[in-house]
Amino acid sequence: MSTIKQFADSEVFRAFATYVAVVLLKMMLMSLCTSFYRIKLGVFANPEDAHGHAKGGDVKKFIRIDETVERVRRCHLNDIENIVPFVGLGLVYVLSNPELSTALLHFRIFAGSRIAHTISYLTPLPQPSRALTFFIGFLVNCSMGYAILSSISYF
Amino acid sequence: MSTIKQFADSEVFRAFATYVAVVLLKMMLMSLCTSFYRIKLGVFANPEDAHGHAKGGDVKKFIRIDETVERVRRCHLNDIENIVPFVGLGLVYVLSNPELSTALLHFRIFAGSRIAHTISYLTPLPQPSRALTFFIGFLVNCSMGYAILSSISYF
Amino acid sequence: MSTIKQFADSEVFRAFATYVAVVLLKMMLMSLCTSFYRIKLGVFANPEDAHGHAKGGDVKKFIRIDETVERVRRCHLNDIENIVPFVGLGLVYVLSNPELSTALLHFRIFAGSRIAHTISYLTPLPQPSRALTFFIGFLVNCSMGYAILSSISYF
Repeated sequence: MSTIKQFADSEVFRAFATYVAVVLLKMMLMSLCTSFYRIKLGVFANPEDAHGHAKGGDVKKFIRIDETVERVRRCHLNDIENIVPFVGLGLVYVLSNPELSTALLHFRIFAGSRIAHTISYLTPLPQPSRALTFFIGFLVNCSMGYAILSSISYF
Repeated sequence: MSTIKQFADSEVFRAFATYVAVVLLKMMLMSLCTSFYRIKLGVFANPEDAHGHAKGGDVKKFIRIDETVERVRRCHLNDIENIVPFVGLGLVYVLSNPELSTALLHFRIFAGSRIAHTISYLTPLPQPSRALTFFIGFLVNCSMGYAILSSISYF
Repeated sequence: MSTIKQFADSEVFRAFATYVAVVLLKMMLMSLCTSFYRIKLGVFANPEDAHGHAKGGDVKKFIRIDETVERVRRCHLNDIENIVPFVGLGLVYVLSNPELSTALLHFRIFAGSRIAHTISYLTPLPQPSRALTFFIGFLVNCSMGYAILSSISYF
């Protein structure tokens, strides 16, 4: 049986694939969310985007910075800052042959913490809700990084 | 035969590797493009960068924000926002054992849409060219995400 | 023996896993660094974050932009722009079956260049130290991209 086919049979790999898809699709939602607010509030970054909105009027009026849009963008950037390490560390963690239950625990907590983070950021909920959700995801990444370095490191 | 050697023989994996290299190298070009405009236009973010340009004059004059540079940076950030999901979803998609022709279709359309996106953004072409190229790449990512969740999901 | 177990035995893969963990954990440190300076200097992006700092006073006074915080954030973004290609290209490079010594050389130089880049950026050291460290990491990524396209490309 070919190598690649065996991946689709590994439960640890399938769990990883599932949660990677969940967090990356959630992250992609932030792009739509930014577009939605840009169009709804008439707040654009590029003159060519504001053309349709200006309807022949002054385009520059719509090239501005809006706090709601900036909040969504900060939330998106925070996702990138944390989901990139999750995907990278998660992948090599899975290939370091962890226990299924331990791996699932990592992936579930991370995905939950990032969804809670987005809700805390966009509502916004009073602190420390956002800080807490951020740190839970952060610690999951640290734990996978530690597991990799302590089990298969080769400097 | 070792596992890792078998990857280099798998056509689906080789197709993924090729298009990952193409889109990531294209994304890296954006860094050079930012540096090029920063130096050409004398627009810097850090005092130490402007030193050579100021030639003993006032460094602060060159610490400013320029629309051309900001456009390149927004284009770069949009690349990151979309290419990160492509790499992550694409990898687990490849390991979910898809048809070669289907996989190639995904990768080719995505790479094409991102190259067209960059051209639309930097020219800039009138909308909806950029919006369209963005959404094509976005849908490719969604389609891979759906394929993963519907074939090998394990929650 | 299962496929996934074989990865943990491959020295090239273990080297990749190690350096991915190192650079991603280093990148995650930048988040902590941003938080540290935000709290120390009382510079926040969101009103809910500044609440504790304002102690019932005017929250808006702490919603501002500070050069030290912005420097850390630019350094973080530069990490993302370069470490994302490293993880993506590095992974497919490892699976293209390179020599262990060549692969190790790539990974070590990249990790070293990114650590030196952060030091150059945050100190800050006079240019061209930062530009140099950036370009060394950039060239490592280009070299892996070239190795992929010249050995296993499938368009």
